[in-house]
Amino acid sequence: MRVLIVGGSDAGVSAALRVREVAPDTEVTMLVADVYPNFSICGIPYHLSGEVPAWQDLAHRTIAEIEATGIALRTNHLATAIDTDAKVVTATTDGGQVELGYDRLVIGTGAEPLRPPIAGLDTLGPDDGVHLLHTIDDARRLDSGLVRRGARQVIIIGAGYIGIEMAEALTNRGLEVTVLERLETVLPRTLDRELAEDISAELVKHGVEVSCGTTVAEIHRDGDQLVVTADDGTRRGDAVLVVSGVTPDSELAASAGVKVDRRGTIIVDRRMRTNVPDLWAAGDCVHTHHVLLSEPSYVPLGTTAHKQGRVAGENAAGGDREFAGIVGTQVVRVFDRVVAATGLRDAEASAAGYEPRTVQTTVDDHKRYYPGATPIDIRITGDRSTGRLLGAQLVGTHGAEIAKRVDTYAVALHKGLTVDQLLDLDLSYTPPLGSPWDAVQLAAQAWLAAH
Amino acid sequence: MRVLIVGGSDAGVSAALRVREVAPDTEVTMLVADVYPNFSICGIPYHLSGEVPAWQDLAHRTIAEIEATGIALRTNHLATAIDTDAKVVTATTDGGQVELGYDRLVIGTGAEPLRPPIAGLDTLGPDDGVHLLHTIDDARRLDSGLVRRGARQVIIIGAGYIGIEMAEALTNRGLEVTVLERLETVLPRTLDRELAEDISAELVKHGVEVSCGTTVAEIHRDGDQLVVTADDGTRRGDAVLVVSGVTPDSELAASAGVKVDRRGTIIVDRRMRTNVPDLWAAGDCVHTHHVLLSEPSYVPLGTTAHKQGRVAGENAAGGDREFAGIVGTQVVRVFDRVVAATGLRDAEASAAGYEPRTVQTTVDDHKRYYPGATPIDIRITGDRSTGRLLGAQLVGTHGAEIAKRVDTYAVALHKGLTVDQLLDLDLSYTPPLGSPWDAVQLAAQAWLAAH
Repeated sequence: MRVLIVGGSDAGVSAALRVREVAPDTEVTMLVADVYPNFSICGIPYHLSGEVPAWQDLAHRTIAEIEATGIALRTNHLATAIDTDAKVVTATTDGGQVELGYDRLVIGTGAEPLRPPIAGLDTLGPDDGVHLLHTIDDARRLDSGLVRRGARQVIIIGAGYIGIEMAEALTNRGLEVTVLERLETVLPRTLDRELAEDISAELVKHGVEVSCGTTVAEIHRDGDQLVVTADDGTRRGDAVLVVSGVTPDSELAASAGVKVDRRGTIIVDRRMRTNVPDLWAAGDCVHTHHVLLSEPSYVPLGTTAHKQGRVAGENAAGGDREFAGIVGTQVVRVFDRVVAATGLRDAEASAAGYEPRTVQTTVDDHKRYYPGATPIDIRITGDRSTGRLLGAQLVGTHGAEIAKRVDTYAVALHKGLTVDQLLDLDLSYTPPLGSPWDAVQLAAQAWLAAH
Repeated sequence: MRVLIVGGSDAGVSAALRVREVAPDTEVTMLVADVYPNFSICGIPYHLSGEVPAWQDLAHRTIAEIEATGIALRTNHLATAIDTDAKVVTATTDGGQVELGYDRLVIGTGAEPLRPPIAGLDTLGPDDGVHLLHTIDDARRLDSGLVRRGARQVIIIGAGYIGIEMAEALTNRGLEVTVLERLETVLPRTLDRELAEDISAELVKHGVEVSCGTTVAEIHRDGDQLVVTADDGTRRGDAVLVVSGVTPDSELAASAGVKVDRRGTIIVDRRMRTNVPDLWAAGDCVHTHHVLLSEPSYVPLGTTAHKQGRVAGENAAGGDREFAGIVGTQVVRVFDRVVAATGLRDAEASAAGYEPRTVQTTVDDHKRYYPGATPIDIRITGDRSTGRLLGAQLVGTHGAEIAKRVDTYAVALHKGLTVDQLLDLDLSYTPPLGSPWDAVQLAAQAWLAAH
């Protein structure tokens, strides 16, 4: 059997590896549009900060390691058409075009950066100092562009987690950074305002200028500089980074008759099957089953792409596995702070028909008598009528095990626990690292007390 | 209604607080044998190390804070008899005896340290430099004894978690420490040999002499020194610390007709009720429902005492709550290492009728390309026939979120997940703090691959 994979990032590679694991006799070919298969896109900010000096180190696996698993890798192969009747994919490569037949096909074409409606943006590019940031090539262009232009001031448009990570990265690189966010707070899709302000303050403390509720209208060049005009005034910078989210890259699939939804995300079932026979899709190009929602959502993250890719690969190899769904778990480190969230926030929960109540409390990461205890701000969202846990947001100090504390809530959400049932959990405790009731349980007690 | 609580440690205080929460009109009286209600016994090593200079800081709550909740606190009241028909508890106090009537009674008398069969141990005490360690008084006596004797060398008998924590504490205090353990490894009730050796090495690296498989036969005084004779030879020290586990303190309850098992633990149902009407018990004096075992077990820990006490208090106040049970979660920091475990190990699982297989793997705490990644050794125990997760042991570097990573396994055990279902969990990821498949999932993949 021949399985063809279109896309060499998290979803594609996970699918390809899984096919080889469960059906070692299968011929697996992977088409990669560029020459960077299996790179950790999430690591780009840490390369640009200088913490990971060689971009090559961002590879989850080297080409040799991928090929050693028996996957036939075709880099520089951009898939341009799928004939789902003849089961042939057409790809362009250096100066030519190839056709590859398949028995089963997995699409993992990912996403592409959104271009917000800013006048001038369409005509400006990396040569002008205006960058999008999604691929390793984008990262390399930004890196060399900053060096070549001797950049000192950078304006970042968008304060989602990539914008924030880049603000930290470029600050650590010695640049002056301004972040402009159209919505009212930083990390607007992750945190409620009460906690987002902590992160704004952390950015400001490290010299970042943060301006929220600020809509950028226009960008233009003025000599070597860029002029960014927003509703609160005009700023000048040596480079502009536009990181305003992503949109699914589903054109190839759609043009082959694969159904997409109104957002352009490929429609798949829980087995990652599309409407076209023998055609699966996974990762940032598909919509996602969310454990707490009846409607699919779009939360493009590497963790999800890995899991979906693995399911798609297993099923393409003849298996029958369902994707269990996400609960929306995220974590981001911002200088010395860590932000983590999972589940739904109040407005999302209300929209989905829940009756949410959110209660915020501040608890110590470990027993206060032991040196080094730090406060964690935790917001718990639960359903007022059923008591079901709906979500949690945590902000605390780097080193306070925030990232893995959110995982306790994530597992609880997966299994449909009530806030009250969090108190039943046998969580670890030693005075330097916790409390007899862990911080995650103390926050649950605060929710219950306010209920 | 009058609720009487015997015992002022974790279980007793949790019960008393819960009664006041759910039934604020209830008269709650708490008898405390000493003058240290609601102290963090788990914090004693960190006081003796010097990290928490004032022992008073080990109080979870001050006496004023407890009394502010409306609990009538009677310190220095040692309960000596219960008349379950007349519903009266007799207690001795300074030079006298008092009788206290109750409608409902909660017993939280805790545990007392085991005295291993060592010749001479019965005749030696703190004045000789031989110490047990269970109460705040014990801690103060050890502290002052070490100072008074100008101790330089201390021999610790027992390498359970308290023995190990004290080895670190006394080393940090500048003493030379030897640890003798009768069983074959350190932390023998927590870790398999493969991981325990890492912790022995960590102790040795910090100057602790560790001798396992060593049975102590005799202790005697020689002038100001103590001579400890074991099967591998004789050692001299200025003080000896015997920390060989605990046994339930159930004499008061048993003499009042409360049923205890062959180990002396008070028998309770899932509502923490004893066989005697209107009499509940909780904490280190009772046996414990274990989610993975059909027979009750005895795992005296503060986390469990808090949860059981809360259930007992809620039910004594007229509620109807079940204790959900433990899964045996523990964590201990040993110098720069952290050990965490939950669930069953191979032998325990076999004895309980499971078909366990344990697979060990080494995974990074976060993406290796980001500076500071450290390896975590994880052993996963799962059932070969059902695939059910049975337990996990982790050893890694302090700072690698080991304590809260074990909690993911703990929640999974609570909910009966298979090892395979760990891969479905939506756990948090950012390169400085994790991987797209978290370390806990990579270990599950290793178990599945070996299966």
